[in-house]
Amino acid sequence: MREQQNPNRAHRQARAVRRIWYPGVVLITLLTDFGHADAYVGVMKGVIAGIAPEARVIDLCHGVAPQAVSSAGYLLATSAPFFPEGTLHVAVVDPGVGSERRVLCARTPRATYLAPDNGLLGPALERDPPLEVVSVENDGFFLSPLSSTFHGRDLFAPVAAHLALGTPLGALGPALESWLPGAVGSPRIVGDATHAEVWHVDHFGNLITTLPGRVGERWLLEVGEGRVVGAVQPHYSNPPNPGPILVRGSSGLLEVSVPGGSAADVLNVQAGARVVLRREPTEEAP
Amino acid sequence: MREQQNPNRAHRQARAVRRIWYPGVVLITLLTDFGHADAYVGVMKGVIAGIAPEARVIDLCHGVAPQAVSSAGYLLATSAPFFPEGTLHVAVVDPGVGSERRVLCARTPRATYLAPDNGLLGPALERDPPLEVVSVENDGFFLSPLSSTFHGRDLFAPVAAHLALGTPLGALGPALESWLPGAVGSPRIVGDATHAEVWHVDHFGNLITTLPGRVGERWLLEVGEGRVVGAVQPHYSNPPNPGPILVRGSSGLLEVSVPGGSAADVLNVQAGARVVLRREPTEEAP
Amino acid sequence: MREQQNPNRAHRQARAVRRIWYPGVVLITLLTDFGHADAYVGVMKGVIAGIAPEARVIDLCHGVAPQAVSSAGYLLATSAPFFPEGTLHVAVVDPGVGSERRVLCARTPRATYLAPDNGLLGPALERDPPLEVVSVENDGFFLSPLSSTFHGRDLFAPVAAHLALGTPLGALGPALESWLPGAVGSPRIVGDATHAEVWHVDHFGNLITTLPGRVGERWLLEVGEGRVVGAVQPHYSNPPNPGPILVRGSSGLLEVSVPGGSAADVLNVQAGARVVLRREPTEEAP
Repeated sequence: MREQQNPNRAHRQARAVRRIWYPGVVLITLLTDFGHADAYVGVMKGVIAGIAPEARVIDLCHGVAPQAVSSAGYLLATSAPFFPEGTLHVAVVDPGVGSERRVLCARTPRATYLAPDNGLLGPALERDPPLEVVSVENDGFFLSPLSSTFHGRDLFAPVAAHLALGTPLGALGPALESWLPGAVGSPRIVGDATHAEVWHVDHFGNLITTLPGRVGERWLLEVGEGRVVGAVQPHYSNPPNPGPILVRGSSGLLEVSVPGGSAADVLNVQAGARVVLRREPTEEAP
Repeated sequence: MREQQNPNRAHRQARAVRRIWYPGVVLITLLTDFGHADAYVGVMKGVIAGIAPEARVIDLCHGVAPQAVSSAGYLLATSAPFFPEGTLHVAVVDPGVGSERRVLCARTPRATYLAPDNGLLGPALERDPPLEVVSVENDGFFLSPLSSTFHGRDLFAPVAAHLALGTPLGALGPALESWLPGAVGSPRIVGDATHAEVWHVDHFGNLITTLPGRVGERWLLEVGEGRVVGAVQPHYSNPPNPGPILVRGSSGLLEVSVPGGSAADVLNVQAGARVVLRREPTEEAP
Repeated sequence: MREQQNPNRAHRQARAVRRIWYPGVVLITLLTDFGHADAYVGVMKGVIAGIAPEARVIDLCHGVAPQAVSSAGYLLATSAPFFPEGTLHVAVVDPGVGSERRVLCARTPRATYLAPDNGLLGPALERDPPLEVVSVENDGFFLSPLSSTFHGRDLFAPVAAHLALGTPLGALGPALESWLPGAVGSPRIVGDATHAEVWHVDHFGNLITTLPGRVGERWLLEVGEGRVVGAVQPHYSNPPNPGPILVRGSSGLLEVSVPGGSAADVLNVQAGARVVLRREPTEEAP
């Protein structure tokens, strides 16, 4: 159960934040793949401001690669523990907009989540299991007419605003017992190797894997065209060698990093790439 | 008058937002081509905060292509209906900064607009006709000395803040009877074809035209090197074929989209490209 | 002492902002190289909101080139004068995160600054000399456990929030008498030339130098592969010729600009490039 230790550590770390009393301000985070070349995010905030003027909106990220549901799932699951209790997280990475996909609203002991039912919420709800999940179907909370192309504006924003005003989940639609799990699986042990994936590539080109990382452990990691051998470092600077190194990242996961460069460029790897982890080979005479 | 139906529909759609009472918070939106590599936008917010600390600022978009006045006009005109009544929209895409171009402030029944007089406000004011327009000339509301290169900081931000404090338009400068129309014209019917333009290319590579779109209508559309034939779809997913498709976009306009890809890349088209729309040819034996 | 005139002018210009009374809202600016593809900035805001819910956060810039400390120093020093008195500026461009580098907190008559001790604060503190500087070491204000890779979340955000709540600098750690100066030096006069640097390249490709600029002065400026000759212009538009021109920029510094284009692309120049300034040669018969 190594994988669960890291989220727990993150939750423990974040407790200093959440213990502090929060005086009734409803905080809404927005996570989308809408980018920065359009007014899509701004319009969502306009709709929210019109319905729930007291709510405060924080941008979690809008630079998710288009339709990269798995990457969005990583960002949400590892960020949510650091927000105050009661925060409403709205995530719109939604390749199926306009089709029959459901929209989920989940309430947990610490937060509320609103997102399409496409696996985006899987990792967050695994770490922060919900008390209540509904399928958002009551169009009385949507803008009318509802477009088929921009549910961020017409569905997610007004529903989020109504949740901020205190609307209970039960008013949004019927309760659900199941939803799509995250698109990225848990690491699988096969023989003497652990198979995993690159979950997210960050702005600095660091490859964030689905594997937990512990400082000092020694591994041989294969990813894309590259191999990284050595001990897991506590940080990115002062590496023992200039090539790719293993680092325990800020979300407790194993990362591949090139100091002063981009591991994604150097190793030619993108999110979703397969990763194989083995014990560091012992040097022996042949 | 097909073109006006879409804005009206957008306004009707947005009414659910605007009807709700808004308790005296002055909302300012910012739309610029300043990008994200500098502190230009942050400094504007600092100036606003210093003069009108109660005002709330929402970023509409700062990723407008440098000096793309027409694209900014699209973003503003199609976003403004979704903001609460009384919102102040500030738009600074201003190739003529420092020259003799005028600065407009316009008040409509629903909003206030502040922008250079270069056509940026044309589409918004066509949809939301003003009650009062002035030329902003009273330098008592500007920072002093006024730079010639950064009117966003020295003119637009302080004037916006003073408007948020309640300064009437008449105090800013003399009334105007005319201003520059939008840079993008209305579609023109020539014989059996309608000639129009690509008004904006969004983050996903969708080509948003100046043509209204109705789901189910069948067209042959020529744009750049490409041709798109078929029925207007209600959304981007589940297309009948993998190539470029026609979609009714969220602003009611006809878009060309490549599911899972970028129509701009596939068809090698940029904003401003000419579009010709004809009836879908009937298949007949030769 | 030409170089100091420009900051002074900027401060005089900004006074109109700062004179106005500011009713107790604590304003925090964030300046990072975290980019827009991750939730790093959003998580910092979540931590701040959890500790100091009343604080207001303004993004100064998150598009600083990775680890470009000097460029960040430019952005902070030239932006800070335009924020209200009492603003807390938090800057995290931190190649040494996790190593032994110190973290500085400085209080000046107008602002508070929090940043790594890597030269980032040099230019700001030169223009706005501090009353008090401390080394931030009291881990009672950090998240626990403190990661070695994301001090933005675990150190800078919670310390900023506690400062916003009124924590005095002395509680953070021991007083300092010295800190690293800015990475970019003052212009140096060598014979009949002044040697300087490109301090920052902005979103429009303008090359912002460390040299003060005065409208009308005539110069020959060499930068990278290019030469620019002529009078310093007051603004970017209506240039006397289509090639690169000299402009007095909004921070009072000399800029190289290509109207309608990118000087950085045309001259193939990046931040840090050397600049040599000479008097414009007089045309004489040989």
